[in-house]
Order: sequence, then structure tokens, then C-alpha cells
Amino acid sequence: MSSDIILNATIMGLGMHLGAWRHRSGSPSDYLDINYYREVAQLAESGRLHALFLADTLAVSEENFERPNLGAMDPTAVLGALAAVTSRIGLVATASTSFNEPFNLARRIASLDHLSRGRAAWNIVTTFIPDVAANFGKGPLPPHAERYAKAEEFVDVVTELWDSWDEDALVGNKASGLFADRSRVNAVNHDGRFFSVRGPNTLPRSPQGRPILYQAGSSEEGRALAARTADVVFAVQNTLASAIAFRKDLRDRAAREGRDPDSLKILPGLVPIIGGTEREAQDRKSALDDLAGDAELRKLASRVGVPASDLSLDKPLPIDRIKANDKFNASRGFQAAAIQLGASENLTVREILYRNGGGHPQVVGTPEQVADFIESWHRAGAADGFNLMIDELPSGLRAFVDEVVPLLQRRGVFQSDYRGDTLRSNLGLRNPHDSLRNYEQRRSHYA
Amino acid sequence: MSSDIILNATIMGLGMHLGAWRHRSGSPSDYLDINYYREVAQLAESGRLHALFLADTLAVSEENFERPNLGAMDPTAVLGALAAVTSRIGLVATASTSFNEPFNLARRIASLDHLSRGRAAWNIVTTFIPDVAANFGKGPLPPHAERYAKAEEFVDVVTELWDSWDEDALVGNKASGLFADRSRVNAVNHDGRFFSVRGPNTLPRSPQGRPILYQAGSSEEGRALAARTADVVFAVQNTLASAIAFRKDLRDRAAREGRDPDSLKILPGLVPIIGGTEREAQDRKSALDDLAGDAELRKLASRVGVPASDLSLDKPLPIDRIKANDKFNASRGFQAAAIQLGASENLTVREILYRNGGGHPQVVGTPEQVADFIESWHRAGAADGFNLMIDELPSGLRAFVDEVVPLLQRRGVFQSDYRGDTLRSNLGLRNPHDSLRNYEQRRSHYA
Repeated sequence: MSSDIILNATIMGLGMHLGAWRHRSGSPSDYLDINYYREVAQLAESGRLHALFLADTLAVSEENFERPNLGAMDPTAVLGALAAVTSRIGLVATASTSFNEPFNLARRIASLDHLSRGRAAWNIVTTFIPDVAANFGKGPLPPHAERYAKAEEFVDVVTELWDSWDEDALVGNKASGLFADRSRVNAVNHDGRFFSVRGPNTLPRSPQGRPILYQAGSSEEGRALAARTADVVFAVQNTLASAIAFRKDLRDRAAREGRDPDSLKILPGLVPIIGGTEREAQDRKSALDDLAGDAELRKLASRVGVPASDLSLDKPLPIDRIKANDKFNASRGFQAAAIQLGASENLTVREILYRNGGGHPQVVGTPEQVADFIESWHRAGAADGFNLMIDELPSGLRAFVDEVVPLLQRRGVFQSDYRGDTLRSNLGLRNPHDSLRNYEQRRSHYA
Repeated sequence: MSSDIILNATIMGLGMHLGAWRHRSGSPSDYLDINYYREVAQLAESGRLHALFLADTLAVSEENFERPNLGAMDPTAVLGALAAVTSRIGLVATASTSFNEPFNLARRIASLDHLSRGRAAWNIVTTFIPDVAANFGKGPLPPHAERYAKAEEFVDVVTELWDSWDEDALVGNKASGLFADRSRVNAVNHDGRFFSVRGPNTLPRSPQGRPILYQAGSSEEGRALAARTADVVFAVQNTLASAIAFRKDLRDRAAREGRDPDSLKILPGLVPIIGGTEREAQDRKSALDDLAGDAELRKLASRVGVPASDLSLDKPLPIDRIKANDKFNASRGFQAAAIQLGASENLTVREILYRNGGGHPQVVGTPEQVADFIESWHRAGAADGFNLMIDELPSGLRAFVDEVVPLLQRRGVFQSDYRGDTLRSNLGLRNPHDSLRNYEQRRSHYA
């Protein structure tokens, strides 16, 4: 049990594959239905997965009208509901630092953390989709560096608010009438470049100290932010070599920040498409692909930043045209991962689409093949675990829980039961208040 | 069943009375616990109450350290959890128009509406507590009129977003691959004084058309906003005469806006303190009062806008000193209600504290006396129902559900079962899209 693999299940619409809503047996409106989320969550928990991960987008873009879009439902509302019908699995809510107020977000995630008894996490994103900006004013999306400068300050304010009640500040002595020890609750008095927030938070600390921080950016600024603040990094890595290098880079950066590198968990995305035989898995993928039409090709085109008409299925990616696009302001992690995968084995666009499931590595095969991939990347130091981007829900998750999880458990690399009651304990992370020195140094930024 | 009384249960901390946390049998930290909320919600639903109402404050003020504060937990997170463990009762989330983004709030409440299958409502408040402003920047709380101007535009943007998907826009035809009918989803392109929001919303319409709108301000601007936009008004009325006048005024205003006055439901707050005999009820109140110390006196002082030292228990309210306070920027509804109650029968501060439970009328008595109060106000045209501010939770709610609800049902003035599946149908309100004319007129404000 020494270095258990960490596994999260991502809920994106009705599945990661763009053809999922047509292929699955339920209603296309299930993505609005509490019973759908309950079924997926309880299935993941029955498989002892560490957490449920909800992505988010604060806009409905044109291509989202073709299928249930991943940002349709507010993640905190969905995870609030799931807190009531699960008891051990973590609940990870994505939320943007560009289009929220730190006080509101800190309080909302802390509320979720109490309601779930210490199972909440916030996945920090800065938002790279231009359509979103138009829902929050007249200005364009801020440039990449500006977004990350704001994100950095935002995260600091949020953690300061989460820490604003000392450990035993909630006294609750009914006999004496002392409810809270006022001297152990402190204003944060944050006064920075982007935010001015007095605090304190409205809530005491949660059972896990404070919510877990996920971070999902792979750019230089994203890595710096993760190394300094994150507990978990949701990575986009398509080759074993680049994943090893990425994880090493982040661990080195964490060490330079004075952190134990083991306190930073790196989870690449992974799309498993599972069949009883390899042929069955390929048939499942083909059926999904047929129903998606050219949507996966268009998604790859937008990931790398060229029009879909610039891509030919039987040719490699047009690297020159990609590099010539100096207006690229989307996810650099997704772009780099696709280019790297294509270059590593001189793959055609068709081959990239087979190996790269909407941006993440994709394993089309038997439960053994999926387990082998997970175990081999973990053993090679490429991953502390994976964010599973299930092709179609709930069927793909059921196959994973029923077929892959028992294999990993038998190999002794995945937990047979939850280690503890909080997400923090299940991730093997320490309470952040055990060593506040580094955090105090950060506060001095704004002094 | 013709004019059923509407009853909501408000969850404020561990009860409305400031001594509740010391008097009740559970843990003082129950206000953070999902099981506490589940118990209260399921109890209210077993009594066929129409909705659960969660107040909110985006700050922890000094007096909040003396007890569980009403804005500790984010209402949408709590109500998300309750959506999963209830099936018929409405879920009303208070949220401020001064410190949220309309796009985020519209999406979050709409998500709650889908998760609950049409049981969500938003209670519109503009925020009158100065401490809140300091959590959102350096400026002070905007003046009253400015807050309401912003609230008015905020509400329009939110309803525009809720209406941005036409009724059948979600097609979901798996065979043809048509997910949404793009021509039936429209950008809102709102460009106003305070907000610029393109839209559309990320979600189709909910089972009740759109979430219900509650409004809780009683000032001139608050009434105008309610008459134009609200489905339900949460009122502060301490005398029968003023409540009749208030309800008539709002119904007249609604009629002048071209609305059916019956489409606007007026619910004053009501604090029932229930005992098997009147003496038992008085003993319950005394026990709660003893545990609250002078907290109720200080709360009354802040409601009317003078220091607590200006109040003497055996004298009337110092009207001259109250009027001399030209800096008053808090709730005018609470202030007027307390002054009116005191003047109506020349009451002392002690008598006001007995009749006015933290701002709202208070009935200390038997189930019959509580039922009589409710029925008489309803028959007199003073109320379409009440927002019950339960003294202590869950015990006070259990007494109400077990003892008062059956009386009202036997008298034929309260529902024996829910009429429908959505909050809208249970309130007897029509789908707003049946008559969009008035709404279209409002949109032209910003054209």
C-alpha cells in the first residue's frame, strides 16, 4: 500500500467522448438530472475512487450546442447534492479565478467542505475561452500572464480566508455561553493588486483543515502556481517521456519552494475505452466515433489552434501553420501535448485522434491493457495517479470499476478501501497547518 | 383548498432565537453539519410546508461570534445537498445583487432548479450590512437607491438568462444527432448601466419554466422592484393593520404593472414559540431569553438604529433619537416595523421584545393560538402565508409540524398534500412564459 495510485473520475456532460450522448442508453437530458449524478458518484465510490472531478466553463460556445456541454451545471451545486448521497469520495469543483470573487468562492467551497465532512477540493483555473469574458463585461479575456498574476493573488486570498479561524476557535460552550473565541478568529486584511478583502471567513476550519487545491494549468505560470500552492495537479501529458519530465519538473519546483515533493500529486488525464477484448474496445470506440461525426477532428483543431480545414486525416499536424498562429490564447497544455504526441512517432492526424482522446492519452483495450498503462506510468514516475476521463457515463465507469479496479487492487497498487474519512487523508496529504512557515512567507507579499 | 395558506420554514443558524444554540439538545456545531440540515428539511417536508428559506450574509460581524451566524454556510451549497434528500419542498436561496455576478448566480440557481426538478427560488437582497462591503473591495456599501438600481438591472439580466433557451430548444434527438435547436437559444446581449452580459445561459429551462423570485425589501425601491419582478415577497410586518396596508399596496402596484395581483404572494415573517399550554410556551421563551442575555436587546437597538444604551426596558422606544440618526443605512423594513409596533399600543421596549421576535411578529402560545394568528391574518387579507422563523431547530419546527399543521389542515386552510411537483405549482403560480409581454417591455429598458 506504500505508494497507492490515485484515481479520480471526471464527470463531463454524459461522457468525455463527443458521441457519448447518442451512444448511451439514457436520456440526452440526463446531464441535468440529479439521479444521473447520484448514480455516477455512487458507482465511483463503490470502486473506491479518490474523488469526483467536475470541470467547468462559464459560457455555452457554439460547439456546445451539439452535445451536453461540460459547463452546463454549476459544479458547486452538483457537488452539494452529491455530498448528501456519498460519504467517502472527494468532491472537486472547478472554478475560475478570472470570473469569481475570492470571498464568495472561499465561502462556497468551505461550505461544501463542511457539508461533506472534509471531502471538498477546488480546481483552480484561469479560463482560456474567449466566449466566457462576454458574460462578465465588455473587455476581452485578459492575456495569459495577467490571468495568472490574478490567479496567484486569488488563491492566496482564498487560503487566507480558509485559515482565518484558528483550530479551536469554535468553542461552543453552552454552559458558559462562549460560542467562538474571538481572539482566535482573524481578519485577513488582504490588500493586493487585484483584490481587497478584509475577512475573516464566515466559517471555522473544516474536518480536513482546509479544502484541497487542484490546479490544471501546464504553462510556465501554471507550473509556478502549482508548485507554490497546489496539492494536486491535473496534467495533460500524452507521452510517457514528457509525463516523466513534467512530473519531475513540478516536484523540483515544489522542493525549491521549500515543500516536500511528495505533497504535490500529479494526475494526468486518461481516457480509457474498455472492451472484453481489444476488438470489442475498438468496436466501442468506432461506434462512438461514428456518432460524433467530425466533432473530434474539430476539437483537435481548436486544441492546437488552426481551422479544422487545415487538418488532413492521413497527414501529420501542420506544425508550421500552428506555430504561425500568434493569436493563440487557449490552453497551452493541450496544444503542447498534441504536438508532442504527433512528433514523438511522426503520427498522422488520424493516429493522433486514436491515441489522444479529446486532448488526453487514450487507451483502447481490455481491462488488463488499461491497468497495464496505469501501472506502468505510475511505476515509471510519470504519474501519482490519473484523472479518468470516462468515454461514456455511466457505462464506461462501470466497466472501469468492475474490471480495472479489481486488477489494480490485486496487483497491490490501488486501495481496497478508503484510508480515512477526508479527501486529504485519502490522498495521503498532511494537514497544511502543520507547517505554516511557507504560508506566512507568502502573506508578506502583500504586507 | 381555494386560498391555501403558504408556509415556508426559514433556517437561520440553529434557530431564530439568539439563545437557541445554548437551549437545544444538539451540538453547537450542528449548523455546519449536513445531518442537521437534512433533519430540518425532511421534517418541514413531512409537514407539507411549501419551501425552505435560507437567509444569507456575506460577512461575519462582531455579534455573529456570539452564536451560529445566519450567513455561515453558502445557501446554494446547503440547498444543493437538500435537493438530493427531499422531493417536493421548495428551496429558496438568498443571494445579494451587490456582490455577485449575474451570470454566475443565474447559472447556479438554474442548476439548483434542475437538480431539484423545479423547486428552486432566488431571494433577492441588496445587502445592508456595511461589514460585507469590506470583503469585496475598498469602497463602502453603495447608498440605498444605488443598490436598488443595480438590483433592478441584476434581476432583469438573470431572468433574461433563465429565459434564453426557448421551451423546446433541447431537442436531444439521438438518431438525427440534433442535440439543441440553435435557433431557439438566444444571446441576451444585455448592455446596461451596471452589467454587460452576452449569454445565453448554459442550461435549458427548468421543469418550472424558471426559478421563483422572492424579494425581501420593504422600502419604496424594494416595493417597486417586488411589484415588477417578484413572485413572493418576504415581508416584515408587526401589526395587522400595517400588514393589510402593505399587502394592498403591493397588490395595487402589481396591478399597475399589468400583473394579476394574485401572482404576487406576500409572506410576513412570523416567530412561533409553542407550548402545550400558554404557560409552557412562556416558559420556553423565558428559558431562551435567559440564555440569550442582552443579545435580543442589542439586536433591537441595531434594527432601529440607536446604541443599546439608548434603550430602557420599561420605557418606549426613543423615537426622537431614532429619527435623529441620519446615517441609518440598514433595513428600513425592520426599522419601520419595530417603530410601528411600539407606537400602535404605546409599548415599552420589554413589551416590544415580547411581541417582536428579532424583528418579526412573535406568537408565544399554544398550537391553537399560533394557528389562530395565522388564520386570522390570512382571512383579514394581511398575508398569503408566512415565513416561519422558528425559535429553535429542530424542536420548534417539530412542534409546528406536529401540532399546528394538523389544526390548519382540519380548518381547511392548509394543504394536506403537495399540489404539484414544482415550487411554482405548489405556490399556485403560472408559468411566466404564458405572458411574456410585460417582460419584453422591460427588456426595452436597455435597448
